[in-house]
Amino acid sequence: MTSRSLPQIDFRSDTVTRPDDVMRQAMAKAEVGDNVLDGDPTVGALEQRAAKLLGMPAALWTPSGTMANLIALSIHLQRGDRFLAPRGSHVITDELGSAAWLAGGMPEPLEHDAGPGRPTPETLSAAIGVPRGPYYALRTPLLCLENTHNTAGGAVTPPDEHAQLVAVAKEAGLTVHLDGARIWHASVALGIPPAALTVGVDTVSACFSKGLGAPVGSVVAGSEEFVEKARRMRQMLGGGVRQGGVLAAACMVALDRIDDLAETHENATRLAAGLAEHGWEVNAPETNIVQVGAPDLQGRLAWLADLGILTLPSSGRIRFVAHRDLSAADIEETLQRIKTGG
Amino acid sequence: MTSRSLPQIDFRSDTVTRPDDVMRQAMAKAEVGDNVLDGDPTVGALEQRAAKLLGMPAALWTPSGTMANLIALSIHLQRGDRFLAPRGSHVITDELGSAAWLAGGMPEPLEHDAGPGRPTPETLSAAIGVPRGPYYALRTPLLCLENTHNTAGGAVTPPDEHAQLVAVAKEAGLTVHLDGARIWHASVALGIPPAALTVGVDTVSACFSKGLGAPVGSVVAGSEEFVEKARRMRQMLGGGVRQGGVLAAACMVALDRIDDLAETHENATRLAAGLAEHGWEVNAPETNIVQVGAPDLQGRLAWLADLGILTLPSSGRIRFVAHRDLSAADIEETLQRIKTGG
Amino acid sequence: MTSRSLPQIDFRSDTVTRPDDVMRQAMAKAEVGDNVLDGDPTVGALEQRAAKLLGMPAALWTPSGTMANLIALSIHLQRGDRFLAPRGSHVITDELGSAAWLAGGMPEPLEHDAGPGRPTPETLSAAIGVPRGPYYALRTPLLCLENTHNTAGGAVTPPDEHAQLVAVAKEAGLTVHLDGARIWHASVALGIPPAALTVGVDTVSACFSKGLGAPVGSVVAGSEEFVEKARRMRQMLGGGVRQGGVLAAACMVALDRIDDLAETHENATRLAAGLAEHGWEVNAPETNIVQVGAPDLQGRLAWLADLGILTLPSSGRIRFVAHRDLSAADIEETLQRIKTGG
Amino acid sequence: MTSRSLPQIDFRSDTVTRPDDVMRQAMAKAEVGDNVLDGDPTVGALEQRAAKLLGMPAALWTPSGTMANLIALSIHLQRGDRFLAPRGSHVITDELGSAAWLAGGMPEPLEHDAGPGRPTPETLSAAIGVPRGPYYALRTPLLCLENTHNTAGGAVTPPDEHAQLVAVAKEAGLTVHLDGARIWHASVALGIPPAALTVGVDTVSACFSKGLGAPVGSVVAGSEEFVEKARRMRQMLGGGVRQGGVLAAACMVALDRIDDLAETHENATRLAAGLAEHGWEVNAPETNIVQVGAPDLQGRLAWLADLGILTLPSSGRIRFVAHRDLSAADIEETLQRIKTGG
Repeated sequence: MTSRSLPQIDFRSDTVTRPDDVMRQAMAKAEVGDNVLDGDPTVGALEQRAAKLLGMPAALWTPSGTMANLIALSIHLQRGDRFLAPRGSHVITDELGSAAWLAGGMPEPLEHDAGPGRPTPETLSAAIGVPRGPYYALRTPLLCLENTHNTAGGAVTPPDEHAQLVAVAKEAGLTVHLDGARIWHASVALGIPPAALTVGVDTVSACFSKGLGAPVGSVVAGSEEFVEKARRMRQMLGGGVRQGGVLAAACMVALDRIDDLAETHENATRLAAGLAEHGWEVNAPETNIVQVGAPDLQGRLAWLADLGILTLPSSGRIRFVAHRDLSAADIEETLQRIKTGG
Repeated sequence: MTSRSLPQIDFRSDTVTRPDDVMRQAMAKAEVGDNVLDGDPTVGALEQRAAKLLGMPAALWTPSGTMANLIALSIHLQRGDRFLAPRGSHVITDELGSAAWLAGGMPEPLEHDAGPGRPTPETLSAAIGVPRGPYYALRTPLLCLENTHNTAGGAVTPPDEHAQLVAVAKEAGLTVHLDGARIWHASVALGIPPAALTVGVDTVSACFSKGLGAPVGSVVAGSEEFVEKARRMRQMLGGGVRQGGVLAAACMVALDRIDDLAETHENATRLAAGLAEHGWEVNAPETNIVQVGAPDLQGRLAWLADLGILTLPSSGRIRFVAHRDLSAADIEETLQRIKTGG
Repeated sequence: MTSRSLPQIDFRSDTVTRPDDVMRQAMAKAEVGDNVLDGDPTVGALEQRAAKLLGMPAALWTPSGTMANLIALSIHLQRGDRFLAPRGSHVITDELGSAAWLAGGMPEPLEHDAGPGRPTPETLSAAIGVPRGPYYALRTPLLCLENTHNTAGGAVTPPDEHAQLVAVAKEAGLTVHLDGARIWHASVALGIPPAALTVGVDTVSACFSKGLGAPVGSVVAGSEEFVEKARRMRQMLGGGVRQGGVLAAACMVALDRIDDLAETHENATRLAAGLAEHGWEVNAPETNIVQVGAPDLQGRLAWLADLGILTLPSSGRIRFVAHRDLSAADIEETLQRIKTGG
Repeated sequence: MTSRSLPQIDFRSDTVTRPDDVMRQAMAKAEVGDNVLDGDPTVGALEQRAAKLLGMPAALWTPSGTMANLIALSIHLQRGDRFLAPRGSHVITDELGSAAWLAGGMPEPLEHDAGPGRPTPETLSAAIGVPRGPYYALRTPLLCLENTHNTAGGAVTPPDEHAQLVAVAKEAGLTVHLDGARIWHASVALGIPPAALTVGVDTVSACFSKGLGAPVGSVVAGSEEFVEKARRMRQMLGGGVRQGGVLAAACMVALDRIDDLAETHENATRLAAGLAEHGWEVNAPETNIVQVGAPDLQGRLAWLADLGILTLPSSGRIRFVAHRDLSAADIEETLQRIKTGG
């Protein structure tokens, strides 16, 4: 048997999920309108539902989480403003520098000294420094959190720590944006509603295509005034689409499936346990992301690929992402291949 | 009978078309993949088909024509570069200034002295001026054409005039981008393939959601090297989507329907004739856009809206856009309402 | 006699003037401080004097007029905003596109239909259009005037026309910036104080190195609040200097010499008359700039250079700029060389 | 006796120095030209001399070190590129974010794990990571060093460590820029020529107004091709000045005085020793910057100001900067005031 004959098991990202028949039928039946002109009813309904779930007054659909974050940063930052975010945040490491080029902001990474993905309030406070110096000083008007934190291994910030960080930021006059691409995962892991994780933030982004199975779509939420600015910014960036309802209908179905993430998390936990039993150095996954250390990273990536197990490097480790298109049986098959494959 | 009881006839744009059942079923059955990671097969097939139709080596799907143009301008322009475009071009007047903010370019409008939407080669040549002066001089590396030209009334540039403009630009070392959002309309009006209208250009954008009925989607085409840069730029702008095949499938169906534009053009011609008979000042539509002059623009817009006839202002006139969701009967009904409505 | 042996007469710009002994001694004796930290007393005194002369509450020294304009545009414009300026304005044609790249603005040139450098109020009004359309429309928050207008031949806008343009702009809610690099020339030509030419504007720039003989320095003036923002923007652009008093002292002397421009203007008038007598096509200079048309522009530029007469092309013509380092005798010598040189 | 009667001793920065008579006379006698058009001879001579001193093919005068760095970063970085620099570098913390807004770059701070201001080669190598990932990955094309490192207390990177960092960067294909605002101080402290500290770098900036006593002026040096691009960028930013020779003449005198820095360094060392004797927590100054820790920073700053001793906060400490306008007697007077003042 050659390795090439093994069917692929795709752990590269939870974005690889394919829409199922239910989702596709919802798309096929979606009521639509021109969302650039006067609105698409399905998009509008999705935005209202998402805003409510996220505990915000209003929301705006965007084609990607990258655009959702970019819109928020572009609105919150003035030219050259510094912003703070936990080291390895998506807005710093995975958005091709648009935070600088487009939003004009200078990132300052915060160490994860409270736990994976989580700076302490003291670290945040020290980084803010003097919030407003003389005219020739850099300004720091924004804190950007991420929950769950992707490159820290899908790490969850619990609501009390979140509240403390927000309190420090607000005390110093900062705006707070939350990159909640996987806020659903944090919500399920903690057993609390998503809105419990946005307390005090000014804006939050969330994705329907990461783990929930929608093919395309994210949202950025905030005040009504923010969303009006965001609508204009979306159009500037080329993110205004016409009959977006065909996509929003899939996002609606995705929102019905948040609870399914519990099974995904179990799969990640089982995978991590199996890899640890096999002797690999592995994190204790808090949600759906398993990270494995390896002395020879590229070698192990290739070895896995040869077994039909697709992964990606992330933060100097190998990242396995559990998702709804991978079953418990896929996890067992993966562990079996690894055990026997070497 | 109150005016409000009249069903609306929507001439605001050819973007208001809704996907029909054939298109929706194609979307529901689309084969998909993760188009940010290693590609979506339906998106890939669409890109190949569009590139071939447009006579270019390669193409890249984008969520909007605005993003397609923005990507091209961002790649063609260096900081502060001047670019030339016929007055009222979409990249100048309808993309919220992203050509300046994001692409860093300074537009210079060219007068339409050869006909609607069409500058003469002499005007172009004069505007180019000295193509490269001293180090402290503005540079002009780009010509941006638009065919059909939207705000000039869906005006067509014939291939010989196109060739002359491209020749002048190339002689002076300029790159040429063609905003072909409605290149399909020009192709049908002239009875020649789209590729006959891109001769000599470096890049071209085209839309599937304007007149052809797709809900979402455009494309920017050029060399293989250009498309690789464009892929990165699309991701930076937040235009990278995952299972884009669900949208590309609709775009594929849209491309099957280019020939239907002939009927749309007939409807526009019939509408213009009827409005002229009614005594209105109206252009002779070359494709699907009818423009009406009115001394009291806002008043007439409101009067039309009151009759259930939806239009938009454009270039100081009232714009009626014919499209595939409006039948010959809708045109007659429109003329009837106008005739009896006053 | 070879042409190379003729001493050069430099008409390229009024920026070529060299500081004389009086000015140099003022520089050598200037009281100074650190102008980035807590201010340089001579710079401060210059800023106060310039603000008063320009009829504005406050002013800020800058190293160049280009930076003065750039600071104003960067503060007045939001990302992608359209701004209006007479065709050929310095901010459009001679600042390397920084209005787009840095300030993020899209220029719209206004035709000179009221006279050289001067659009009519009707042209301005039409260009403003609907000042604020739907969220997806370009915005036009700024009018940028230029007095005197350089590429229009040092053309003067008289105060009544200025007032009409400002009134139209203000009525539509626009901010008005005046590029007054050579406002001194307009003031002397009209025999009214500079402040009479800034009525109603929000901000104005002016140069000490154009015609007045200072080696380096300009100013941008406006409200106290504007100047505080401008101070920060100057520092961001790298225009903050330390003991700027050595330069400001020269600018102070320059301001003592505004009245000398009358003689400069006479020289320009004499030059134009002589060139017209010689049969050349020439403008009637309103201030210090003489423009000559020529069928073979490059040929005539070279022919003049061969006679030791240095000029530059401008707007498709040859530009002679009279200035304080050229005497009446230099003008006669120039005319003599041209008469006998051919 | 009230504290206000004490004459001020200004340790805020080495930029507060005032030009002396020799320097002022040089300025008064400077040969000048129009440096935007065809060059100013004194500026040209300074640029040649500075280039040679810095071991680079060519150099360009700029009004500030901030602009010198900004020009280099703008040329080296493409939109959104990540760049690496030791934590607290001037380009990150003290240039108002222009590295992001204007140059479009995302800074990544490197820890000082080899000593003050100095990352280890391993830290650099880890930060570079995979130099070029897939199309959707952030790119890292630039390392920006700073020698001496201001906020690290005027810390010197010795030539061997410099060489190791440059080697790691070059191996990974990075460009290297050196912020050498105070490269003169490093040169004097090490007893080696400035050019020994630029080995392997692509570009370097240096200031004449920091410690050397010139009122205004810096330089950015690199290849001839770089300097041509830099000349254009300087003009775009508004840093092109006319008769810059009046300033360059002072910079020439400043270059004659590099050796005087030895005395400045002795003064800093004496100050630090005296403060330590007084029981304060103080760094061992490698050049001219003394940093003092204090539990109540604002309180101690105010206390010092009350004694007529002017300092600034820097990196959470109090910064005393020794410079040529402060004598050994001023140091003793300062220590005396501190000793008796409390």
